[in-house]
Amino acid sequence: MRIREVHVTPVAFRDPPLLNATGVHEPWALRTVVEVVTDEGLTGLGETYGDLSHLDRVRAAARELTGVSVHAHHALYARVAASVGADVVTDQHGLTGAGSNQKTVDAVFSPFEVACLDIRGKAAGLRVADLLGGPVRDAVPYSAYLFYKWAGHPDAKEDRFGAALDPDGIVAQARLFIEEYGFASIKLKGGVFAPDEEAEAVRALHDAFPGLPLRIDPNAAWTPATSIRIGNALGDVLEYLEDPAPGIGGMAEVAARVPMRLATNMCVVTHDHLPPAIAQRAIGVLLLDHHYWGGLLRSAQVAALCGTFGLELSMHSNSHLGISLAAMTHLAAATPNLNHACDTHTPWQDGQDVVAPGALRFTGGAVPVPEGPGLGVELDRDALAVMHEQYRTCTVRRRDDTAYMRSFDPDFQAKRAHW
Amino acid sequence: MRIREVHVTPVAFRDPPLLNATGVHEPWALRTVVEVVTDEGLTGLGETYGDLSHLDRVRAAARELTGVSVHAHHALYARVAASVGADVVTDQHGLTGAGSNQKTVDAVFSPFEVACLDIRGKAAGLRVADLLGGPVRDAVPYSAYLFYKWAGHPDAKEDRFGAALDPDGIVAQARLFIEEYGFASIKLKGGVFAPDEEAEAVRALHDAFPGLPLRIDPNAAWTPATSIRIGNALGDVLEYLEDPAPGIGGMAEVAARVPMRLATNMCVVTHDHLPPAIAQRAIGVLLLDHHYWGGLLRSAQVAALCGTFGLELSMHSNSHLGISLAAMTHLAAATPNLNHACDTHTPWQDGQDVVAPGALRFTGGAVPVPEGPGLGVELDRDALAVMHEQYRTCTVRRRDDTAYMRSFDPDFQAKRAHW
Ligand SMILES: [Mg+2]
Ligand SMILES: [Mg+2]
Repeated sequence: MRIREVHVTPVAFRDPPLLNATGVHEPWALRTVVEVVTDEGLTGLGETYGDLSHLDRVRAAARELTGVSVHAHHALYARVAASVGADVVTDQHGLTGAGSNQKTVDAVFSPFEVACLDIRGKAAGLRVADLLGGPVRDAVPYSAYLFYKWAGHPDAKEDRFGAALDPDGIVAQARLFIEEYGFASIKLKGGVFAPDEEAEAVRALHDAFPGLPLRIDPNAAWTPATSIRIGNALGDVLEYLEDPAPGIGGMAEVAARVPMRLATNMCVVTHDHLPPAIAQRAIGVLLLDHHYWGGLLRSAQVAALCGTFGLELSMHSNSHLGISLAAMTHLAAATPNLNHACDTHTPWQDGQDVVAPGALRFTGGAVPVPEGPGLGVELDRDALAVMHEQYRTCTVRRRDDTAYMRSFDPDFQAKRAHW
Repeated sequence: MRIREVHVTPVAFRDPPLLNATGVHEPWALRTVVEVVTDEGLTGLGETYGDLSHLDRVRAAARELTGVSVHAHHALYARVAASVGADVVTDQHGLTGAGSNQKTVDAVFSPFEVACLDIRGKAAGLRVADLLGGPVRDAVPYSAYLFYKWAGHPDAKEDRFGAALDPDGIVAQARLFIEEYGFASIKLKGGVFAPDEEAEAVRALHDAFPGLPLRIDPNAAWTPATSIRIGNALGDVLEYLEDPAPGIGGMAEVAARVPMRLATNMCVVTHDHLPPAIAQRAIGVLLLDHHYWGGLLRSAQVAALCGTFGLELSMHSNSHLGISLAAMTHLAAATPNLNHACDTHTPWQDGQDVVAPGALRFTGGAVPVPEGPGLGVELDRDALAVMHEQYRTCTVRRRDDTAYMRSFDPDFQAKRAHW
């Protein structure tokens, strides 16, 4: 089964004005859909970021893969690495940590690897989870991923989620998500308001949903001193504290002085970061993300490494579509030591998707492992065409939450160790 | 594809009187052959240790695997772990490091995992190496594994390898192995004679085979001080120095004061050992061994971990047969960062095997990846019957090099940090 052709399609879908430490989500979120087709006519799907520079790298790599076996993981990786060369992605939106060449290669490789696993599963009549060692759980728990947000984009009408700018708004949002999806744990994206205000929102969530595990992620907007103060103030209610302060050193300083584990998708985002983070005991939970850890098999290897070093696991999410949700679900289902509910932006898609309905659903806050074969999802070509047209006509070409925020508030500064 | 039945067959084959720090190889080496059969009638092969307590654990685990899918790696592992319970193997022969419960489970799991991969490869028309990410090399280099030895077992006639009890004997042995197999690197099993005598043998190998990478492995028979002295004396000729002194602490002390990397299959033999060994910079090369790292996929995960932490890789070997050589070759071929020739005892088998001839051969010291499907080797049932009969009639039930040596030299003491 060799790769005959690869189709790379950028898409855009509507995104609500979600606030974070670097600004606010733009009206369009970008993704790239990858279709790998074999000489036998099997098709596999992958999904990755949509920023133009990344899209260009994915397109360039795709041209190098023709003729390679879908089983040749190492050879495919070597082709992608050669295509990427010495490039290093800089993290333009500031939310997923330091760049490196390996992280860049891993991010370009990821959608091809997922697509090849999809094909391998289809060829063998197996789910992707079976190719990853078999599911150890039938459904993967996700958390309600709450954001402070405006009622709507300033130049558009209010969205159905409404405003969430204080503890009451956050609790109302949680109530909506839990009602619609059944989530049994809650994450609040912080770094937007003063830390004590956000701690108050966490406290309000605790009061409204006693017993539900809670997390807050200020995206390194806090200083170590503030992180230690808030971490101790929320010691009785947080499941873990996610990226309170920047850098491995800053996180290590906090980790030694708060009662809960620190989680990250910022200070450890590629292999180079693991040795120093482990040596300095900077983190207790790694948020896996197959989009930048090089696909599902490499993420499974990172998960095994975390097991060896006593790091717990959860999963990070950017705005994504159903191909990624399926891939995340297969990986999480087949990762024995993934012991925290995963993050997902799915509710914010509000039904928009490139995959045909039916394969993915939430029950009790968890997504049952799609039945497969492969990822178990199929492209909805009409939806893909619509989303590609949206990409063509929207003006967003790379995510820039800060620039969008500045169009409303010219003095806005992205926050890093700000409070 | 579910497991319908498992056959577990202990075998014995003739082994020459190879000397090491704990004594001398007995006339019979033991192994266990595992055959897993699926409901569709596909058979997969695995091979593991033959010591009776291990054989009993393998048999007990085998009874728990019926009905499980050969793809359900995690579920099979969980069944084996439950079967092993809290048992901890003690390393009776003293050559493969400290025991732990995980190491015990991993060792029992390994032959079943290899057999399931063999089946998965056969079902898909793929080599096991393809299931591990695809070969990155067409053939796997092995080293000439030299031993000090007697001319023959004391109560038998001289074997065809003859005596090797001084530098000249070691050089002659190397010459024979290189002539017959084409090896391009050499390992000397040490810990038998005084360190300076063994260093002299290494020096003689260097003079006789200039340019060939050399290693010596005294199995922790040296003190750290001696290890540092000999390591520096051989600084210009050793590719790496293997387990000169006992323990992670001792190895770390040596590693900081010798010019070459230290390798181990003694102080790091299970996951618990990796964090302290890495923190203390005790080793530079891990000798992988799928027999105790839980099979091929788990070994591949350990290999990835080593890449993350800058550890190089080679491969350890005990006396083994062709099923293991095939498994080792598939794993090594599909491990990009395995960058040292692997160890193998194959020449000491002297043609004895349970697999049908033809699938495995050495060319230029390397074994071409068997063509598969699966492992690419088939049982020779007549040979298996003969070897099982040898097991039945020989009196060895667990390897005990020390007791065998004491039958000739009642005062013999196994050497650990002795010199
Ligand atoms: Mg985060
Ligand atoms: Mg050794």
